[in-house]
Amino acid sequence: MNYIIYKNENALYYECGYSCDNAIFVKLGSSSYFITDGRYKVDANNNIKDAKVLIANSLVDKLIELLKQNRVKKITIDPTEWDIFNYEKLKSKVPTKFKFNPNFSHKKRVIKTQDEIKYLKKAVKLGKNSFKQISRVLQTLEGVSEKELNFVAESHLRDYGSRDLSFEPILAINANAAKPHATPTDTKLKDGDLILLDAGVKYKRYCSDRTRTAYFKDDFNFKLKQNFNSKKIQKAYDTVLKAHDIAIKKARSGMKAKEIDKLARDVIEKAGFGKYFVHSTGHGVGLDIHEMPYISSRSNTIIEDGMVFTIEPGIYIEGEFGIRIEDMVYMKNGKTVIM
Amino acid sequence: MNYIIYKNENALYYECGYSCDNAIFVKLGSSSYFITDGRYKVDANNNIKDAKVLIANSLVDKLIELLKQNRVKKITIDPTEWDIFNYEKLKSKVPTKFKFNPNFSHKKRVIKTQDEIKYLKKAVKLGKNSFKQISRVLQTLEGVSEKELNFVAESHLRDYGSRDLSFEPILAINANAAKPHATPTDTKLKDGDLILLDAGVKYKRYCSDRTRTAYFKDDFNFKLKQNFNSKKIQKAYDTVLKAHDIAIKKARSGMKAKEIDKLARDVIEKAGFGKYFVHSTGHGVGLDIHEMPYISSRSNTIIEDGMVFTIEPGIYIEGEFGIRIEDMVYMKNGKTVIM
Repeated sequence: MNYIIYKNENALYYECGYSCDNAIFVKLGSSSYFITDGRYKVDANNNIKDAKVLIANSLVDKLIELLKQNRVKKITIDPTEWDIFNYEKLKSKVPTKFKFNPNFSHKKRVIKTQDEIKYLKKAVKLGKNSFKQISRVLQTLEGVSEKELNFVAESHLRDYGSRDLSFEPILAINANAAKPHATPTDTKLKDGDLILLDAGVKYKRYCSDRTRTAYFKDDFNFKLKQNFNSKKIQKAYDTVLKAHDIAIKKARSGMKAKEIDKLARDVIEKAGFGKYFVHSTGHGVGLDIHEMPYISSRSNTIIEDGMVFTIEPGIYIEGEFGIRIEDMVYMKNGKTVIM
Repeated sequence: MNYIIYKNENALYYECGYSCDNAIFVKLGSSSYFITDGRYKVDANNNIKDAKVLIANSLVDKLIELLKQNRVKKITIDPTEWDIFNYEKLKSKVPTKFKFNPNFSHKKRVIKTQDEIKYLKKAVKLGKNSFKQISRVLQTLEGVSEKELNFVAESHLRDYGSRDLSFEPILAINANAAKPHATPTDTKLKDGDLILLDAGVKYKRYCSDRTRTAYFKDDFNFKLKQNFNSKKIQKAYDTVLKAHDIAIKKARSGMKAKEIDKLARDVIEKAGFGKYFVHSTGHGVGLDIHEMPYISSRSNTIIEDGMVFTIEPGIYIEGEFGIRIEDMVYMKNGKTVIM
């Protein structure tokens, strides 16, 4: 298959072990090309073995030249990667037929290799250790603002600069935890608060993703067993934990993704919190923090051994609190293994 | 003019004072709409005054509904914002004619208001103070790795969590400074090293951008006067500084952007370093760290009062060293003012 990867760093990296923020990868039969600009010349040549590095001011002009020289008749592109502006320019300059295949790089990457699972496990382990460190430090930070707590959490996750993050971590208190994508405020942490931490780190560019919700008091920690002082919060917490546990226990290779979503959703609906579970049960994780398979109520994807995804049910009550518990799993011998 | 802003956070913010990472803004005559998903419902409604907030699972489906309901015949879109996948879907479902206007939001934003200049000045001031703090801390960090130094620099720039950055800062040593977009290494800082720091912070979402190159020794600082121990480096440094000073001194409103680029480039070419100045002389700065006007050898944009841009000549000698000196200026009464 002839194909083009357009400015998508993880897709570029998957093809040739290197990426930068301005590059196009082209596969023509057995030949590979990596088109980038002069800023990345040294790094690209040092790091890429199996593709020819081409340097150009305009990547698309160079691509046009390459397609013309090789008289390419048909080539696959990802229409979610290309902006209309550059695509229209490309299309008008070459006789090549462009075949649309949305997210084809994600499709290629959905079953992880042994090495990829090893890297993902390591990323999960590093993330888990950071949660422990953060919980210890938080014990000493009563009265500190949510904004500053986010910085503290991030510093630990990044191990003071030596690690990259999977995404900007979310540390949210009480009602702010009810917003699945909360912006940190100046609210100060106090005894009896609910803390939600959603964060992940990278290992060899592979992502981890983890969420815990906890009750802030003296011997505070991010373990799954939590005792809140509010009955309503405790009921919601126990429901989310049950949904999380059942989905992980009962998910099987061969199921449709939406059946796994239903395992978690049924628990939450039965407990009367259905309308407060406003997102999907999970998503694939790999080089990208969100990739296939999507564990949503609409996904007919068949789950297979070697797939890696999150299970992360939640309950969000506007103005009051939010709860989410998230772990990453991979499918092995037909069942889930928690990473 | 009817127009659509598609998932571009700063363009969204410019229209309605709020943004999130999944939203479409639509202007239809005197009515404005902000389409987003349930995760941002609370924040969007709290922060947006002059647009109606519409919540939907699929933003594009909601947009299709809106265009149909209002029988919109013609609307402007930015073809650099839209991916082909969503555009093809949109186009196939409505009779509306889409008028392409690349970067129209940047065009609207090229002349800054008094308030915007105030915010940009404040951002520059905060960034400048961080450079001072970082230089003081670096004096104590001989033997520390480039990776860790990057973390230290970032911590100061972010003021431990209270500020956002314009972009991921670059702190590069010696040969790594020769790569305009260097990745930090494990190389340890030592006496006699060259340090390049390129960084900026945000104030009310407006960006600053600053670069200094300095010689690391006991009384090290990021001032413009620097004495390197190598004659070659000193000659390159003095050349870059001269190019920087002359471009700032001689730039005038009414000039073409490429004439300002030439002011800096001529100095570097005359000194024999022409082929080592591998990028443009500058770029506009505002809500985006890179916006119009682009101060490049190909830009015919006429420079006007109220425009804000960087002047940042550089010399990069592969495997040896890199030098860049960058300041932000704005045009007032026909001349530049350093911010």
